[in-house]
Amino acid sequence: MTDRHRVGIVMGSDSDLPVMREAAKTLEQFGVGFEVAVLSAHRTPDDAVEYARTAAGRGIGVIIAGAGGAAHLPGVLAAYTTVPVIGVPLDAGKGLGGVDALYSIVQMPPGVPVAAVGINGARNAALLAVAILSLCDQHLREALRDFRHAQAASVRAKAERLTAEGLPAYVPGGGAGNAPGGNRRSR
Amino acid sequence: MTDRHRVGIVMGSDSDLPVMREAAKTLEQFGVGFEVAVLSAHRTPDDAVEYARTAAGRGIGVIIAGAGGAAHLPGVLAAYTTVPVIGVPLDAGKGLGGVDALYSIVQMPPGVPVAAVGINGARNAALLAVAILSLCDQHLREALRDFRHAQAASVRAKAERLTAEGLPAYVPGGGAGNAPGGNRRSR
Amino acid sequence: MTDRHRVGIVMGSDSDLPVMREAAKTLEQFGVGFEVAVLSAHRTPDDAVEYARTAAGRGIGVIIAGAGGAAHLPGVLAAYTTVPVIGVPLDAGKGLGGVDALYSIVQMPPGVPVAAVGINGARNAALLAVAILSLCDQHLREALRDFRHAQAASVRAKAERLTAEGLPAYVPGGGAGNAPGGNRRSR
Amino acid sequence: MTDRHRVGIVMGSDSDLPVMREAAKTLEQFGVGFEVAVLSAHRTPDDAVEYARTAAGRGIGVIIAGAGGAAHLPGVLAAYTTVPVIGVPLDAGKGLGGVDALYSIVQMPPGVPVAAVGINGARNAALLAVAILSLCDQHLREALRDFRHAQAASVRAKAERLTAEGLPAYVPGGGAGNAPGGNRRSR
Amino acid sequence: MTDRHRVGIVMGSDSDLPVMREAAKTLEQFGVGFEVAVLSAHRTPDDAVEYARTAAGRGIGVIIAGAGGAAHLPGVLAAYTTVPVIGVPLDAGKGLGGVDALYSIVQMPPGVPVAAVGINGARNAALLAVAILSLCDQHLREALRDFRHAQAASVRAKAERLTAEGLPAYVPGGGAGNAPGGNRRSR
Amino acid sequence: MTDRHRVGIVMGSDSDLPVMREAAKTLEQFGVGFEVAVLSAHRTPDDAVEYARTAAGRGIGVIIAGAGGAAHLPGVLAAYTTVPVIGVPLDAGKGLGGVDALYSIVQMPPGVPVAAVGINGARNAALLAVAILSLCDQHLREALRDFRHAQAASVRAKAERLTAEGLPAYVPGGGAGNAPGGNRRSR
Amino acid sequence: MTDRHRVGIVMGSDSDLPVMREAAKTLEQFGVGFEVAVLSAHRTPDDAVEYARTAAGRGIGVIIAGAGGAAHLPGVLAAYTTVPVIGVPLDAGKGLGGVDALYSIVQMPPGVPVAAVGINGARNAALLAVAILSLCDQHLREALRDFRHAQAASVRAKAERLTAEGLPAYVPGGGAGNAPGGNRRSR
Amino acid sequence: MTDRHRVGIVMGSDSDLPVMREAAKTLEQFGVGFEVAVLSAHRTPDDAVEYARTAAGRGIGVIIAGAGGAAHLPGVLAAYTTVPVIGVPLDAGKGLGGVDALYSIVQMPPGVPVAAVGINGARNAALLAVAILSLCDQHLREALRDFRHAQAASVRAKAERLTAEGLPAYVPGGGAGNAPGGNRRSR
Repeated sequence: MTDRHRVGIVMGSDSDLPVMREAAKTLEQFGVGFEVAVLSAHRTPDDAVEYARTAAGRGIGVIIAGAGGAAHLPGVLAAYTTVPVIGVPLDAGKGLGGVDALYSIVQMPPGVPVAAVGINGARNAALLAVAILSLCDQHLREALRDFRHAQAASVRAKAERLTAEGLPAYVPGGGAGNAPGGNRRSR
Repeated sequence: MTDRHRVGIVMGSDSDLPVMREAAKTLEQFGVGFEVAVLSAHRTPDDAVEYARTAAGRGIGVIIAGAGGAAHLPGVLAAYTTVPVIGVPLDAGKGLGGVDALYSIVQMPPGVPVAAVGINGARNAALLAVAILSLCDQHLREALRDFRHAQAASVRAKAERLTAEGLPAYVPGGGAGNAPGGNRRSR
Repeated sequence: MTDRHRVGIVMGSDSDLPVMREAAKTLEQFGVGFEVAVLSAHRTPDDAVEYARTAAGRGIGVIIAGAGGAAHLPGVLAAYTTVPVIGVPLDAGKGLGGVDALYSIVQMPPGVPVAAVGINGARNAALLAVAILSLCDQHLREALRDFRHAQAASVRAKAERLTAEGLPAYVPGGGAGNAPGGNRRSR
Repeated sequence: MTDRHRVGIVMGSDSDLPVMREAAKTLEQFGVGFEVAVLSAHRTPDDAVEYARTAAGRGIGVIIAGAGGAAHLPGVLAAYTTVPVIGVPLDAGKGLGGVDALYSIVQMPPGVPVAAVGINGARNAALLAVAILSLCDQHLREALRDFRHAQAASVRAKAERLTAEGLPAYVPGGGAGNAPGGNRRSR
Repeated sequence: MTDRHRVGIVMGSDSDLPVMREAAKTLEQFGVGFEVAVLSAHRTPDDAVEYARTAAGRGIGVIIAGAGGAAHLPGVLAAYTTVPVIGVPLDAGKGLGGVDALYSIVQMPPGVPVAAVGINGARNAALLAVAILSLCDQHLREALRDFRHAQAASVRAKAERLTAEGLPAYVPGGGAGNAPGGNRRSR
Repeated sequence: MTDRHRVGIVMGSDSDLPVMREAAKTLEQFGVGFEVAVLSAHRTPDDAVEYARTAAGRGIGVIIAGAGGAAHLPGVLAAYTTVPVIGVPLDAGKGLGGVDALYSIVQMPPGVPVAAVGINGARNAALLAVAILSLCDQHLREALRDFRHAQAASVRAKAERLTAEGLPAYVPGGGAGNAPGGNRRSR
Repeated sequence: MTDRHRVGIVMGSDSDLPVMREAAKTLEQFGVGFEVAVLSAHRTPDDAVEYARTAAGRGIGVIIAGAGGAAHLPGVLAAYTTVPVIGVPLDAGKGLGGVDALYSIVQMPPGVPVAAVGINGARNAALLAVAILSLCDQHLREALRDFRHAQAASVRAKAERLTAEGLPAYVPGGGAGNAPGGNRRSR
Repeated sequence: MTDRHRVGIVMGSDSDLPVMREAAKTLEQFGVGFEVAVLSAHRTPDDAVEYARTAAGRGIGVIIAGAGGAAHLPGVLAAYTTVPVIGVPLDAGKGLGGVDALYSIVQMPPGVPVAAVGINGARNAALLAVAILSLCDQHLREALRDFRHAQAASVRAKAERLTAEGLPAYVPGGGAGNAPGGNRRSR
């Protein structure tokens, strides 16, 4: 069913790509199809509306929308579709550390929800999309469980290396090859 | 398929019920089955873990978890299940206006996402759950679209009454009977 | 020229009327025509877009848009018109004191500005609209100067009453009849 | 009419020039005349007052004032003129990310409004000034519409290049020559 | 020397009197002369400037200025006088709890300082004024020391009553008559 | 050993008693001896210093210090003793919701720690004191475990009543008698 | 008794080691035994639970848990043990400066406390652990007093060097060899 | 009289010197005597108390105290002297941008005031000290007025250079030699 329900990754500017790219990489890990689009809620609003209106028809099951500052994009898309929209607040380096984008995304009025993840949380947005899609996709659900196990194993491998090498010798991130599915930028 | 995928509404204390009750009401509007539980991530952690572990097996498709203060409940549940978890930050009247709960819920580390909605946003959490479940439920998807249309009609009815009655005479919320599916506490 | 350039006062919900009503009252003081509309960026997005697109053609010279929470309405309108949009962040009683609405309104991306006034600052939004419209309306410019003088006189009258009555006897807001054009809720 | 209504760009210190310069560049794009002044609300208050008092008489139609920290300059100017004042909160690198300047600018008391744009939003301040001036300048209004179209086209060109080149190959900001009127520092 | 150096208590609106009145009461306790004025930095800016310019000549040794929101009054006065200005940020009930006024008052640019006290801290502003004036007034310095001792005695009396009566019986603020010079609204 | 190690509950003002009283009640539940004192870091600093210096000698094993605003009391005490100091930030109703007290208490410089609990968290401060004292008191450790079990049972009783009565009938806090050791003000 | 009561230092990711390492160094200074573990509340929740459940039995007297973002680890551990848990909020470079972690750690619900120290305060967490353990360890209590004296002496040595060398010549941190027990990164 | 009333510049750590040095430089400009001390409210509290107690007797007329984090030093000193204390909140690079220090310094309880200046505002603290001391020192008052004029002249010189050179050629801070008394790090 994953080939029917793909994910739309959208962002307001191509300057958001370095962060939003993580969502694409994560979906690739799971073999979930996706499309990437640059759409501005303010500079190309008609394109954003058109994108949202036609998303379900194009087989998009979840939309991931990243935006910084007065981050309207996720909410604007959500107004035009019943497809779940995941908002990624971006720290646009404007001094507020992304809290402006977080508030703009998460504080939606009753009636039209957006699902917010953490600031710059593009990877988690993709994992949430996978969790949502796996509700009607048995294979994807199993892949998600495998990912969780691999992730736990990766944390455990570090923990064991720390025990084996001892605190003074241990270099974070070093040594133990990263298992597939593990999160390299752990925190 | 809605009878297979029900929603779990959980909260850390029964004092959260006045807000979280909205989620139950909204799911009832859509005929989506749900269960309600009081589970504390800190006072009954084993019960919370058990709840999360067994949720998928009990047919729970989405978990809605409300919590205030150091709102760990949504994240703790998410750690034990791949079912999507929607976190509702509650303003627990502790002086910070719910921003503590918002940060505790939304800033999850990469690997285990939680979908945050706005502060006290129990109604939107339910609507997001409906949107997620409707991915594999054609009837629910149509019900959601109908809801959106009814909601728009309700806003429009107010707009028209305002035009008809004029600003001085108009009383917010008064007059025009609330259409089914409309959100009475509109904002 | 004021009858050509009217002001559009819009808000996302009729529950915003108690605050936004101040904008209407202030425009009435200046004899500036206005229209009031309830339009939701999320619940009736098509109506909001249509409103913005047709505003200039209807003779609207300035739009005043009030919104709380994830206050997208001013920005969404600004995306569809070149008419100046003044955003009024509303404290929607959601625990954040209106700072969510302020950030959502003021932190617009480069290319599509919104003019933000203070939280619940509907009166100032109207005065800003008058200042903007008076650029091409000599009569309005003079009325604005008169208002400023009356306002100064009103503050001075209080100051003098305070001197005359002395601190212990003085009751804020009492006594000296409010001059026309004075702001009764002075702060 | 643009040669009659020029824009005054003022700032409290020449260290604000790197940000405020953007306002000048943007006005040049539109052929709107402007003057630049360094005026401190605290160190040269008489000059600031004199500037505001004489602005309208010098043909200034809009004042853009940038300030950081306890950013009084926009409000002080607004107290002495009925010309619309646009305040640009500057992130003065003082640890608060510009939120101090934002509050100082936007939270004006009723009676004397300032139009706030986003932190470091000098470009948007200029675009807002153009929108205001275009109310009584048909040519400027058309230029603003053209700018919006060019801006949309620029976003679309990036979107298309992203589709053509694919995510792995795409370099933000690279490739497609910047169209005149496009915003190079897109976000 | 106290009759030469009096204190000027100013505020932007008579609605600030309930808080600022505390400053007057405290100065009365010390027999320090003072004058009270309502002056708006934005609505009667000329009066504010005139007040500051002539303060030293009138024998004003310290100015206490209370303001809320975009609290420019203390800084504007400081720009026109070398008399020390103490700023009292007022919580104007605008949703931000006075943090807007605090930032507007305390974050002055280098060259023109304002001395900020806590939010609604009118009493402390007066005590700071007394401390400043007592630098060149031996009698006032002694009165200040006496005040400190009486204040300590008042706290100690409560502590002793608590010990004597025990926790269950003790009623805050009750019983022990308030010593002269004690702070009744202890916190 | 509990009779040797008692707890000192101190606060800067008797107006803090309504919150700090909870700490006393909780210690009573565990049969841990305590003393209550009103001590101001600023108004009776010598008494505060003396209290801290002599605490260990009087058999005080843990100090719980509640303070609001610029909450220096816990840190000042910690500077004069090696007895662990638990700081309770109080929301003194000064507009900042207690975040000022939280920062003042928790952000201690390296070398002299204070253990902060949540805003108004007097009950948790007492429970933390019990946990600390139980390190060298086997009976207290068991009492703490019993408390945890009773607390879990109390949450579970509510959960079961909710299941039995159903959502519409359930009244938070009603019905099931509060088990000893249960927290009545559950959140 | 120190060899019986050791300290557990845990963190959610090995990327937290550069900060948390300070806790280990400090405990080494005092000869307090400790163990270091990488445990994620979300990625290896079972390991975290197991760690907390077995801590007391392994002779762990205090747990120090560092975490950033939605910092659940300290609270999750506290839910499974009555051993005192000290939480260290980490600034994970996510834009919020660690305030998210601070709120997530400190705002625990009544019934299950966590002792929070300052952001990145790993050294203070260790000193707090030493203070707690020294309640039932006379030798450790004396070592802590010695440390405090050495620390004071180190500050005094700097103060004296500053007086001797004068302000222009003085280089912070330079010169006077760091005494054992002194805090090199003084602030 | 300046040789009688000197200024005490104190800070909690020598790592604060790079910022606090500005206060010394500014006092030197005015020929005001000062002493510099490193005193920690927490690590050498007795020294801090002793310093405050003896300050007046040593001829100290104003104390300037810089501190970061839980910045208790200014308040602790103020508790032991009636000499006016000016607090300088330092951004200690701990993630909160100095707002922790600001709240800890400014939110003093009624009865013991501290005069707060802006974050890292050491120069303004010195200028405020000069203003305070000049109340009873005619020469100093004149020097302060001269400084203000020189400062205004310096800003004006930049303004004129900007007009003469034009925006594209102007380099901030360049060119016009800094007048004595001018603020080189303007803003």
